[in-house]
Amino acid sequence: MKLTESDLVDLARGAAFLGTGGGGDPYIGQVLAAGAIKECGMPKIIEPDELADDALVFTIAMVGAPTVLSEKGACGEDVDLAIATMEKHLGRKADALLPIEIGGVNSMLPIMAAARSQLPLVNMDGMGRAFPELQMVTFNVYGVSCTPACVTDEHLNSLIIETGHAKRAEDLVRVSSIEMGCSVIMSSYSMTGKQAKDYGVHGTLTMALEIGRAIKRGQLEGSPIDELIGYLRSTPYYNQCSVLFDGKVTDLRREVTDGFTMGHCILSALDGSERTLEVNFQNEFLIAKEGNKLLAIVPDLLAMVDRETAEPIPVDALKYGQRIKVIGTSAAPIMRTPESLAVFGPQAFGLDYEFTPIEELNQ
Amino acid sequence: MKLTESDLVDLARGAAFLGTGGGGDPYIGQVLAAGAIKECGMPKIIEPDELADDALVFTIAMVGAPTVLSEKGACGEDVDLAIATMEKHLGRKADALLPIEIGGVNSMLPIMAAARSQLPLVNMDGMGRAFPELQMVTFNVYGVSCTPACVTDEHLNSLIIETGHAKRAEDLVRVSSIEMGCSVIMSSYSMTGKQAKDYGVHGTLTMALEIGRAIKRGQLEGSPIDELIGYLRSTPYYNQCSVLFDGKVTDLRREVTDGFTMGHCILSALDGSERTLEVNFQNEFLIAKEGNKLLAIVPDLLAMVDRETAEPIPVDALKYGQRIKVIGTSAAPIMRTPESLAVFGPQAFGLDYEFTPIEELNQ
Repeated sequence: MKLTESDLVDLARGAAFLGTGGGGDPYIGQVLAAGAIKECGMPKIIEPDELADDALVFTIAMVGAPTVLSEKGACGEDVDLAIATMEKHLGRKADALLPIEIGGVNSMLPIMAAARSQLPLVNMDGMGRAFPELQMVTFNVYGVSCTPACVTDEHLNSLIIETGHAKRAEDLVRVSSIEMGCSVIMSSYSMTGKQAKDYGVHGTLTMALEIGRAIKRGQLEGSPIDELIGYLRSTPYYNQCSVLFDGKVTDLRREVTDGFTMGHCILSALDGSERTLEVNFQNEFLIAKEGNKLLAIVPDLLAMVDRETAEPIPVDALKYGQRIKVIGTSAAPIMRTPESLAVFGPQAFGLDYEFTPIEELNQ
Repeated sequence: MKLTESDLVDLARGAAFLGTGGGGDPYIGQVLAAGAIKECGMPKIIEPDELADDALVFTIAMVGAPTVLSEKGACGEDVDLAIATMEKHLGRKADALLPIEIGGVNSMLPIMAAARSQLPLVNMDGMGRAFPELQMVTFNVYGVSCTPACVTDEHLNSLIIETGHAKRAEDLVRVSSIEMGCSVIMSSYSMTGKQAKDYGVHGTLTMALEIGRAIKRGQLEGSPIDELIGYLRSTPYYNQCSVLFDGKVTDLRREVTDGFTMGHCILSALDGSERTLEVNFQNEFLIAKEGNKLLAIVPDLLAMVDRETAEPIPVDALKYGQRIKVIGTSAAPIMRTPESLAVFGPQAFGLDYEFTPIEELNQ
């Protein structure tokens, strides 16, 4: 995969869709990535297969409340420090960087990091979407240690966390990130090339880019939703997808609590009926219900898009009166295994529902 | 200085006095130290002069709310992990350990650490008393970096913090320690032997031991307060001292807030007069006032002792109706310099008073 600077806008749009409302606004990541590319050149994107089995790779990401991420950004030296601190602690130079998640700002931040560090970036991630907590990645599900995890801030303070439990690391990263201003840079999940290839969700940088391109193409041709759905159906993971609801926002509750953006949104149908859809979120959209009928549930993907342009709408940008189409999409198969559901299925978010694939819920 | 196991009780008593009400209950430290000595042998105590100028030394301590420290203790492996993590991060074995403070549990925890690690312990500390925050040590005042600081817990989770500012390190250690259960092991202030000799408060392990012995001797002879004052007057630092008040506790407010034990205590005189003394604390006793008249203020030492036995009473053990003598004592000269007062003078605790030496306040 070869990235050009003009791809960044499409990639950001696609990442916003896969961010399922969260993951931080990719626009800020796009600006950061463009700045780094201007300064340091376009980074090399490699396919998972190009990784040597014994390569050293780790993830790089922003962590915090999306509302704050969008305002605070990253200064660049904080990113360099996170990589350098990990390398020093591991006693070895990295061979490549990975996005931890493909949704939102964390699709773009690794591009910035790869440009600055001159390390290749691997076309994959640890979930094929976005999630709010550090343990919620396939790498953790399949036994890769989350730690050492390195957290840095724009004042170049750094933390290295070592723990046997990814949820414990999440708790420590979370309190640190709050103390450091609710938005930090984090490097974690150091692993071998073989582990990355075995447990990662492959090709997601490409898919994010193509989702963004499909929406743009549709906008020019007057059918953005159709183009989007058409592209998704051609992918290996996101092919079970449909428009779940067409409505406008008639109720919205959103607050930043414990470092997360939490709340719910209610949409009322535009077809003149009394139908309403309730969508709950913790950084990301987690569950959609029409009355008592479940339409989609995590880890399957839920996105809200503008009903005319198909532009993805993050939780932060939801507004009363917005006209929205809600799109549900299947997650990658590795995200739906019993092992994965135990880590980031509905129960992990306090939802009292069993996971049911979106294609079964919407037959 | 050669320590014997029977010295531990006296050392703990003296450390409780120098803890000025805080620093954690030295009894728990005494138990921990005795256990480690039984398992690993008595550690070697060396004088500051025995340190080579280029030796590597760092501090080892418990950090958290004294109320919790007293219940939680340390498992030993957490102490080993803190030392090992510091050594690995610094890329060098330590030559000796230092107490960060001599007051309270942190006089004894380093004995446990020295016994387990077979490293010598230096007869000195960074304040000659106890203080609630990490930046409040002479080493920081005179330019030794607080970080890398390593924090560990009994589950063997670890954090390494790197920052340019000791107060920032304090903030990060504090939130981490709260997340890790309000009591953790911390290693910090790695420095050369020369820095330790130049900026430390020398001989304080000996003085804590002798204070404890003086109180015990006095108890046997029926004059513990006199013996205590007599010994203090013979020391190089604590020689300006007097009984500031003789009263009973008639009001007490004490709560654990933000990881600290905060509050105040009011004593009413036992001589039949209407005199009252107000003492405020943040982990340690900070200020004593009789009405508007200031009697002692931080960094000079304030201790509450049982009026019959001279046993030091920690903040946690204060009770309504207790009969107490309040003893004020001069701090070491290096603690009273303008540079030191800028870091841990009254303003650092939000007290709206200038520091005035206890010997001027009580002429």
